[in-house]
Amino acid sequence: MNRHKPLDPAVTPWFAGVPTFLRCPHTRNLSNVDVAIVGIPFDGACTYRPGARFGPRDVRCQSALSKTYNQFLKVNLFDVLSVIDYGDLDLDPMNIENCYRTIEKEVAEIIEAGVFPLGVGGDHSISLPIIRALAKKHGPLSMVHFDAHTDTWDTFLENPYFHGSTFKRAMEEKILAGDSVFQIGLRGGLTSERDYDFALKQGVRMITVDELKQNGLQAVIDELGRLKGLKAYVSLDIDIVDPAFAPGTGFPEVGGLTSHEIIQLVSGLRELEIVGFDLVEVLPAHDTANITGLLAAHLIFEFLSVLAVHRQEQSSLAGGNMPCDC
Amino acid sequence: MNRHKPLDPAVTPWFAGVPTFLRCPHTRNLSNVDVAIVGIPFDGACTYRPGARFGPRDVRCQSALSKTYNQFLKVNLFDVLSVIDYGDLDLDPMNIENCYRTIEKEVAEIIEAGVFPLGVGGDHSISLPIIRALAKKHGPLSMVHFDAHTDTWDTFLENPYFHGSTFKRAMEEKILAGDSVFQIGLRGGLTSERDYDFALKQGVRMITVDELKQNGLQAVIDELGRLKGLKAYVSLDIDIVDPAFAPGTGFPEVGGLTSHEIIQLVSGLRELEIVGFDLVEVLPAHDTANITGLLAAHLIFEFLSVLAVHRQEQSSLAGGNMPCDC
Amino acid sequence: MNRHKPLDPAVTPWFAGVPTFLRCPHTRNLSNVDVAIVGIPFDGACTYRPGARFGPRDVRCQSALSKTYNQFLKVNLFDVLSVIDYGDLDLDPMNIENCYRTIEKEVAEIIEAGVFPLGVGGDHSISLPIIRALAKKHGPLSMVHFDAHTDTWDTFLENPYFHGSTFKRAMEEKILAGDSVFQIGLRGGLTSERDYDFALKQGVRMITVDELKQNGLQAVIDELGRLKGLKAYVSLDIDIVDPAFAPGTGFPEVGGLTSHEIIQLVSGLRELEIVGFDLVEVLPAHDTANITGLLAAHLIFEFLSVLAVHRQEQSSLAGGNMPCDC
Amino acid sequence: MNRHKPLDPAVTPWFAGVPTFLRCPHTRNLSNVDVAIVGIPFDGACTYRPGARFGPRDVRCQSALSKTYNQFLKVNLFDVLSVIDYGDLDLDPMNIENCYRTIEKEVAEIIEAGVFPLGVGGDHSISLPIIRALAKKHGPLSMVHFDAHTDTWDTFLENPYFHGSTFKRAMEEKILAGDSVFQIGLRGGLTSERDYDFALKQGVRMITVDELKQNGLQAVIDELGRLKGLKAYVSLDIDIVDPAFAPGTGFPEVGGLTSHEIIQLVSGLRELEIVGFDLVEVLPAHDTANITGLLAAHLIFEFLSVLAVHRQEQSSLAGGNMPCDC
Amino acid sequence: MNRHKPLDPAVTPWFAGVPTFLRCPHTRNLSNVDVAIVGIPFDGACTYRPGARFGPRDVRCQSALSKTYNQFLKVNLFDVLSVIDYGDLDLDPMNIENCYRTIEKEVAEIIEAGVFPLGVGGDHSISLPIIRALAKKHGPLSMVHFDAHTDTWDTFLENPYFHGSTFKRAMEEKILAGDSVFQIGLRGGLTSERDYDFALKQGVRMITVDELKQNGLQAVIDELGRLKGLKAYVSLDIDIVDPAFAPGTGFPEVGGLTSHEIIQLVSGLRELEIVGFDLVEVLPAHDTANITGLLAAHLIFEFLSVLAVHRQEQSSLAGGNMPCDC
Amino acid sequence: MNRHKPLDPAVTPWFAGVPTFLRCPHTRNLSNVDVAIVGIPFDGACTYRPGARFGPRDVRCQSALSKTYNQFLKVNLFDVLSVIDYGDLDLDPMNIENCYRTIEKEVAEIIEAGVFPLGVGGDHSISLPIIRALAKKHGPLSMVHFDAHTDTWDTFLENPYFHGSTFKRAMEEKILAGDSVFQIGLRGGLTSERDYDFALKQGVRMITVDELKQNGLQAVIDELGRLKGLKAYVSLDIDIVDPAFAPGTGFPEVGGLTSHEIIQLVSGLRELEIVGFDLVEVLPAHDTANITGLLAAHLIFEFLSVLAVHRQEQSSLAGGNMPCDC
Repeated sequence: MNRHKPLDPAVTPWFAGVPTFLRCPHTRNLSNVDVAIVGIPFDGACTYRPGARFGPRDVRCQSALSKTYNQFLKVNLFDVLSVIDYGDLDLDPMNIENCYRTIEKEVAEIIEAGVFPLGVGGDHSISLPIIRALAKKHGPLSMVHFDAHTDTWDTFLENPYFHGSTFKRAMEEKILAGDSVFQIGLRGGLTSERDYDFALKQGVRMITVDELKQNGLQAVIDELGRLKGLKAYVSLDIDIVDPAFAPGTGFPEVGGLTSHEIIQLVSGLRELEIVGFDLVEVLPAHDTANITGLLAAHLIFEFLSVLAVHRQEQSSLAGGNMPCDC
Repeated sequence: MNRHKPLDPAVTPWFAGVPTFLRCPHTRNLSNVDVAIVGIPFDGACTYRPGARFGPRDVRCQSALSKTYNQFLKVNLFDVLSVIDYGDLDLDPMNIENCYRTIEKEVAEIIEAGVFPLGVGGDHSISLPIIRALAKKHGPLSMVHFDAHTDTWDTFLENPYFHGSTFKRAMEEKILAGDSVFQIGLRGGLTSERDYDFALKQGVRMITVDELKQNGLQAVIDELGRLKGLKAYVSLDIDIVDPAFAPGTGFPEVGGLTSHEIIQLVSGLRELEIVGFDLVEVLPAHDTANITGLLAAHLIFEFLSVLAVHRQEQSSLAGGNMPCDC
Repeated sequence: MNRHKPLDPAVTPWFAGVPTFLRCPHTRNLSNVDVAIVGIPFDGACTYRPGARFGPRDVRCQSALSKTYNQFLKVNLFDVLSVIDYGDLDLDPMNIENCYRTIEKEVAEIIEAGVFPLGVGGDHSISLPIIRALAKKHGPLSMVHFDAHTDTWDTFLENPYFHGSTFKRAMEEKILAGDSVFQIGLRGGLTSERDYDFALKQGVRMITVDELKQNGLQAVIDELGRLKGLKAYVSLDIDIVDPAFAPGTGFPEVGGLTSHEIIQLVSGLRELEIVGFDLVEVLPAHDTANITGLLAAHLIFEFLSVLAVHRQEQSSLAGGNMPCDC
Repeated sequence: MNRHKPLDPAVTPWFAGVPTFLRCPHTRNLSNVDVAIVGIPFDGACTYRPGARFGPRDVRCQSALSKTYNQFLKVNLFDVLSVIDYGDLDLDPMNIENCYRTIEKEVAEIIEAGVFPLGVGGDHSISLPIIRALAKKHGPLSMVHFDAHTDTWDTFLENPYFHGSTFKRAMEEKILAGDSVFQIGLRGGLTSERDYDFALKQGVRMITVDELKQNGLQAVIDELGRLKGLKAYVSLDIDIVDPAFAPGTGFPEVGGLTSHEIIQLVSGLRELEIVGFDLVEVLPAHDTANITGLLAAHLIFEFLSVLAVHRQEQSSLAGGNMPCDC
Repeated sequence: MNRHKPLDPAVTPWFAGVPTFLRCPHTRNLSNVDVAIVGIPFDGACTYRPGARFGPRDVRCQSALSKTYNQFLKVNLFDVLSVIDYGDLDLDPMNIENCYRTIEKEVAEIIEAGVFPLGVGGDHSISLPIIRALAKKHGPLSMVHFDAHTDTWDTFLENPYFHGSTFKRAMEEKILAGDSVFQIGLRGGLTSERDYDFALKQGVRMITVDELKQNGLQAVIDELGRLKGLKAYVSLDIDIVDPAFAPGTGFPEVGGLTSHEIIQLVSGLRELEIVGFDLVEVLPAHDTANITGLLAAHLIFEFLSVLAVHRQEQSSLAGGNMPCDC
Repeated sequence: MNRHKPLDPAVTPWFAGVPTFLRCPHTRNLSNVDVAIVGIPFDGACTYRPGARFGPRDVRCQSALSKTYNQFLKVNLFDVLSVIDYGDLDLDPMNIENCYRTIEKEVAEIIEAGVFPLGVGGDHSISLPIIRALAKKHGPLSMVHFDAHTDTWDTFLENPYFHGSTFKRAMEEKILAGDSVFQIGLRGGLTSERDYDFALKQGVRMITVDELKQNGLQAVIDELGRLKGLKAYVSLDIDIVDPAFAPGTGFPEVGGLTSHEIIQLVSGLRELEIVGFDLVEVLPAHDTANITGLLAAHLIFEFLSVLAVHRQEQSSLAGGNMPCDC
């Protein structure tokens, strides 16, 4: 197999080259591909600072520093996974329903090709059509959702689809199984004491920053073990970390995690059967010194390492043939 | 009459106070008001960098340095005009047609109260509903349009309303009289040699930066004299000036005017019968050192001075009674 | 009672509106008011970076994201408290003694109206006249002081009043009871081994960052219990947090708290009888991505939640009638 | 012929897509190509601020706004020219002589394929190997050099090759014909009254900013007519414009041109037989609001328009067959 | 004579070394010195943005690029002038009257040593004590004042000394001869039509930006010839240029000069008998990409070149012995 | 002895004065000196973002806030140590081997004078010649190396000397004793699973961020006790802290330490026999709000406090005569 790999820094230094995700080749040809990183530059559903449409471009640029071997997970991810930059989807910022159709359709094609879809937002509204595409194949998904906010509000002004209602819609559509959903990193003011009612009724397990800091990361990772064997979606809103670590985001919430904590949480996912991933709400116009983009890029690297480890283990269990769950 | 005035800097220093436009009182009571400055924080129709929804807030903050006497036009504008900060309109960034209805309705109320509407955007799509409201009262308007772009494109993806089609729509709706429209400051690349065809057919007078630099500002001001006696709308896209002078904008176009040139052009409007004004496309997230906001605030001061001079002259012609055209 | 509340985000989105503290109404009418948030834009007493005069404006702008329900303290603060933006005091940056008279007089009026004064600085010198006004009513106060610095130095060059001597002056004036004063978050270099002598002699309890990190936040919160029953002042210098979390400040001190830690410390105050609060040393010109302003705004939200909880508890103890301590 | 064109904004909005120069396809296949835009990310020869190695990446990102039709030159450049993003050359920032070999070799291959080489730096040292490659084919070149500095100094410390000696070396190597060299935009302090002696002896025509402002741009453009019929190289150091227009550069020199002036100067080149072009010294780490990158991108658009016009004219003179000079 | 010179860039590159003004030696020894550049880090008298106390530090850093030979004035200034960095005066930001005493006393010592005082502010209030010191020796001075503002207001709140009253106080004290004062670059809003009355009554010649742009720089320079033979003070407020060219300033005024224009105006002073100079209102916290500091540093270089040319001419008139006017 | 001390803030406020390291006198006279802080502005060996050549200038500016008494280590460092700003070495960014010779030679002179060399970079390549100079006197050194990276890679492209190979070269040259080397703070992606092989074979003790967070700082400090009695070098790459705390660096690595953690680690060195120290990779062009420079300046203060405590203890052991180990 002709595996897709990043540019070799021993030939092309990190500062050189057309910016692609993790310096992987840009192609829409899905053969011999394990993971397609897809830019989804849509921010038409945000409620405060817009500009996440420039997230994919920035993550491409900042991922130039990306490496190949993960010293903590002990895996060279590109020995396991063939990864491409699929490019950006062509989306109309003024028409969310059209965008949803485009995203769902294109992600479905990726899935059909046996390729893992890794979306880079864009605002958090983009998770819904990805989950729709995945649920068509896998049925209702479990989810690990890293975020300061639950995104289970109902409407913004009169819009049913916005970056704060994504997971309410998904649970209403029964494409997410609420009782297999973890929301981690919650904090900040609410608009009412009933903001969480819907999610709680669905059985969502909500873990605030305060609980996380008090019980420690390992407790959360252990509890996530409950999802083993279920097809899981992972959605990572960069605002789970504190604005000191990720100033470039659309709805910043102080009092958040550190970068080290989110890296550890992501690396704690390696036993799950993950079928899709997104990283959203990177807003470069408010970033400083590119630290948000750098963190986002590294979290993609970390997630891909997790995926590689999981596939390696599956493969060795299966006697060397790598099964594909996606 | 109890005229509305800015806070007195001899009492409240420029750095103090709740930020309102030009430090004028914030009220929605339209009695004893000549000019209502209205924030229109809508940016859902932009095609590149979003964020102009934060324009009104920033112009409020930067207008703290605003003064009362214009040394070039020799007028103390607040001796002539009673000015308020009307506040922002409540707009849904995801629904332009609803926004258009809201803007048109609220501007119509302002006009009905005999008050001059001065809109602060927001992206350039907001001019359309203001012009609709004004044209209902005055019929098709003439216009002086300061901008790097003609904004007479047809659609963006499939959207008829976006910040680049505003004046095509207005001319199609016959609320702007194309042959009484000046577009000043044009430059930058086009998508095709036919981009200007529609406007030219309507009789629009298009003045590029190159023509402006070559013939001088006075030639343009003289030519604007042709609009005397017509009800005119003035729309000022901050991107008419170069990004060096206004980096904080949504669709920057290098090679533009200086701040001094746009101030002079605005002051050259004082013989026109202006019935409405907007200043749009201030995008604070991309501003540096607040220079875009400062320029925008000063252009509002300059425009109000022009309006004051015009009213003074009308008043003295009329024997001391100030007529109201709006 | 006609309680003052923030703008409703279901009507006016977070990015819209004249910027006031927590989107509360701007008025100087103190009837039916529980808390008056007062801007105190004075920075004439700082010793390194000036510019905190712009603190109130920035906190107004960044508090646009403020909500109503505190999920950790389980209170909708605006169900308990009627809150206004009192506006800024008119202060002369060149004359601290005049400013002190103005601040003391205006805060006294607020107190006399039975309203809780919440000051937003400005540099740390502004606490002194607030404490003077409060002590006139309540006698010497206890204090919880969050800060990297003790602010108990004697003079700056020859000035007795500056942002580093505030609490020495207050203890000398016997308006603070030194043995009921906690200073939390201390760190950084000193000018001599005797810098802390005065405060230690007064019985001040000084808790360094190192002690805090070693013993944990809960130990400090427990120890604060000693102040129960005493009238307490709370003064929060934003430089208690690390410059990574609050770069926009006048005398930055590395090695500080995280945003999460200060939020927890503030929420730990809920059993105290607090009669006044200030948040100082926000310096927007050195802020990046507005994170300092966002944190400051959230800390005011957190503090008001604490106040609301305390009043609720007092009220329920008293059989439903809410007593007013202020 | 299958001409290479930019992404169509009617399909892929300006904010979307993998960033390439002017949104043209990234390929190293030189068939059916007229112009290859080559990133040359080398800054190892600068003497003050380094970082121009990130110039190509930034110009790619900012050129996203690029259009196709030049309204002043009245040409759709992509109807005339097939343009690609050739990618970046692999260069070692620590070894200028190796870099020179690589650049010369790769540019020679481009030239041999009949393709016009357009280099994007990188610091100004990169012009030398491009000129070497071109001179091998064309003999000593004439040059239009836009810059604040002559770059005809001798050594920096002991290095013969640095960004300030490029054109002295080129004239010494007789690959530039000094008496056919124009240097335009000169200003700033010198290290001695003899700094210009070498260039003057070579017959270089040096035009300072003062002369330019006094005599006007047209006088310069007219004088450039003297180069007609000679093979010309054009080198554009972005520091020819004032730091207000291009803050992101390595050796800023106040008192420079405006963006409008440099655009006009570039468009004044359309009668010359230009065989190579570079744009250098864009340093994104010092840029603000991306205005330097935006200007650089537009200048490439402008230069390509000039090239297209020239080829069109040559072609029509030749009866419709487009000759190729490169 | 052992003349003080800048570090030699052929030995110490521009980016190296302890930052001093123009890389000249830092000493307080005034023997063999022609010009002492004195930092005056006082900003306690400003009315909007403070922070000019950091002006001297920034000008030191940005003047690292300074050269020795002025190609337009054709002089190597350090062949004529021995220049030192005298360091900063020790000033109390909270006590302007003490500062005035310190500045006057230290400048007097410099003058008494036969050394030319060149002050770097700080806000514009610092000019008064410099002029006091000079006038004690020379009697009432003429002045060329480059500024957006006349600084002839009366009081700020109740303070007689602030950065907007400097020259009113000086004319009241008869240390400036109003009818030999030029104020160049005036613009912006005023607080009343009487703002200029005092200055006009004193005979001040006020030249607005509009007059300057209309009549050209040469007309102004010619008119300045009227001051020949008078002892002149030159005060340059960096806000004379537009915020695009000098964003880092305390009271920005849009519509200003370009950097090239102010350089030309300064170079037009070379026939005057200048006895003192200051450059004020550089405020680094609001600067972007250091362009304000770079311009300020270059204007000091330009002014010193003017001084050198003048001394050369005086010297050659006098038969080779350089007279000293200061 | 006439000990060198910082400027006294009771005379010269923190914002005033020519910027030197910790406000200490700038001199090259080494008599009566204990510590020479040496600027080493070389960044010619970096592989991603250049610009650390401006590190020394920035550390000088930001160290203006430096104090004299360390409240945690209970020492007034300037009562123990006489400290100077030695200035910057004159280095050629294009010739690393020459630079190495210069650095080694000048550091050797400092050592020969019995003065402790404290280097401020510059990129991490500068440690090698310092260690060479020290090892000539002391033999192979032990080392505590704070860094995100091991810097034991072999080559960059074909260069043996670059900022990632420094300690491999040093161990190959046997000037570092690998089995007495601690590397603390390691994290981030690697290029292969063999990246650490060389160091591990040398016996280097590598402590990742994960180990550090898990076991706590004290465990590391305890383990460092193993180096007692050995001559130790300490090298601190500012990228050991997270980009949130030190955005201004050349090869940022997310997931790092906090500022408080690195301060504690440095203060944990006080029992070691340290003979040299460097702080490297401060890159001001990417810093925000100067927080990186402020942290770097404070870490130098902290390290000097450690050195002072150690010398005090040695001195009291020795009966009051302070021995000198360097």
